[in-house]
Amino acid sequence: MTISGFNHKISVVVRFHEVDMLGVCNNAVYLNYFETARLEYIKSIGLMPGKGIFSDGKLFFVVHNEIDYLDHARYDDVLDVYSRISFIKNSSFGYDHLVVNQKNNKEIAKGKGVIVYVDPVTGKSTDLPELFVETIKRFEPEVRILKDEKLSE
Amino acid sequence: MTISGFNHKISVVVRFHEVDMLGVCNNAVYLNYFETARLEYIKSIGLMPGKGIFSDGKLFFVVHNEIDYLDHARYDDVLDVYSRISFIKNSSFGYDHLVVNQKNNKEIAKGKGVIVYVDPVTGKSTDLPELFVETIKRFEPEVRILKDEKLSE
Amino acid sequence: MTISGFNHKISVVVRFHEVDMLGVCNNAVYLNYFETARLEYIKSIGLMPGKGIFSDGKLFFVVHNEIDYLDHARYDDVLDVYSRISFIKNSSFGYDHLVVNQKNNKEIAKGKGVIVYVDPVTGKSTDLPELFVETIKRFEPEVRILKDEKLSE
Amino acid sequence: MTISGFNHKISVVVRFHEVDMLGVCNNAVYLNYFETARLEYIKSIGLMPGKGIFSDGKLFFVVHNEIDYLDHARYDDVLDVYSRISFIKNSSFGYDHLVVNQKNNKEIAKGKGVIVYVDPVTGKSTDLPELFVETIKRFEPEVRILKDEKLSE
Repeated sequence: MTISGFNHKISVVVRFHEVDMLGVCNNAVYLNYFETARLEYIKSIGLMPGKGIFSDGKLFFVVHNEIDYLDHARYDDVLDVYSRISFIKNSSFGYDHLVVNQKNNKEIAKGKGVIVYVDPVTGKSTDLPELFVETIKRFEPEVRILKDEKLSE
Repeated sequence: MTISGFNHKISVVVRFHEVDMLGVCNNAVYLNYFETARLEYIKSIGLMPGKGIFSDGKLFFVVHNEIDYLDHARYDDVLDVYSRISFIKNSSFGYDHLVVNQKNNKEIAKGKGVIVYVDPVTGKSTDLPELFVETIKRFEPEVRILKDEKLSE
Repeated sequence: MTISGFNHKISVVVRFHEVDMLGVCNNAVYLNYFETARLEYIKSIGLMPGKGIFSDGKLFFVVHNEIDYLDHARYDDVLDVYSRISFIKNSSFGYDHLVVNQKNNKEIAKGKGVIVYVDPVTGKSTDLPELFVETIKRFEPEVRILKDEKLSE
Repeated sequence: MTISGFNHKISVVVRFHEVDMLGVCNNAVYLNYFETARLEYIKSIGLMPGKGIFSDGKLFFVVHNEIDYLDHARYDDVLDVYSRISFIKNSSFGYDHLVVNQKNNKEIAKGKGVIVYVDPVTGKSTDLPELFVETIKRFEPEVRILKDEKLSE
């Protein structure tokens, strides 16, 4: 890790079909990169889909995405996608992302996402398991825990 | 219908993100168009997903696709995708597709696809329902019925 | 138009391949819908790509996107994507989007985007043409013009 | 290389958004994998886009694709995509592809593609450079050279 404040990175290569007619990686493709990064993040800390807490049958849904495009990425560029969980609420948590072009260290994009933990039976959000929260806290010492604040509402 | 031999047509507009850095609709996108055309075809003859025979719990999977690219399509081109079911076997059936650029009637692509009817419990192909076969025969009088040939194998 | 505050609408149908393994329209697909909506918006007010101000050789690039996902959209849902230009700065402008499920009027997503006008020769942002600004002002009487504020910086 | 007859391999991981609502990698995605494989193949033999013969300004367009889907691939599966150039004609050449699931060596798909070499000025196909043909012949000793046959037409 060379980027301060991030403990997780994946690398993706911009594929031919992801580049649009302006010659740059299409704006929507970055949300696919973020999605891939988030799943790899969860896997890397031992909370892999199909195992651990994901096997409790609960689902994760994205409820918010935002992205600032800082520079273009082009075909065959190798992009490092840095991710961290920045906050945890009762039934949701937030990611920060930074995309850097590996060849020149230029920042390509910055993004955020919020994920909510949903019980597929009720279709409603439900409290994040304690194991999830504790695992994230160990991996991200600076994560803001906003659970109590919400409980006191 | 202006194209001889086809009783079904959908129209799609080439979207910005479907155009690649060569300025033309990317080759893989046509398989999405074919997929959309096939589902609309099934819907148009009253065998709509979620109703009728699709509600028997069986699944349709593509087992073959082929496509000849005859000319380029570009951003915002309106494409007519013509489809017909050309043959029916015991547990599979085949589509023919023709893609025509609406603005100049140029043929953009020709394709074929084979769909197999699968029982999700066994994971194996299973006989197409008689209702499906009869409905197709009414809609496509020239469809080749290859069921008996397979039965005699 | 049935939605207050929006003068432009396109309708899109959620395609089979846009639905992910959770059974809902994938989060990134909405940025494609926004992109399509923006281009149709520009076309509808007579500033069509390839004609008018777009033919001055300048490019439009997205520099910001954000989206709140309010409800799921599923295969074959017809979505109305409402768009308005909410502000204009010297060389950029901002869109608001609202996505509504046509069958039940449920709000599916809300989004924003910022587009910058770029001179491909210099690669730098450049002032929006007066024709563009005047055309938008006629179509969107409530658009906030932030050009002067920026000029006075 | 563990697969007889192929001298080139890339590995791709099935991404979340590439899986459709049937829980399997969508059929069109494989054409993106083939496209990626073909470009990596060309790069690996020193005929990289932007360098070497690609810098002569000529373009490569796909004129044919076909694929047999042999088994499903699912989210996070690692797929080995094997490619070889099987024939070379005057202004076109053909690929064979084989997709294998890395975890169990099951064959997922087999495909073919034909690429034509086009002069962007005339928009017509043009003879493949001798360097291209010679380089392929060294890398694929069993490639069928169909140039002479076409010349004698």
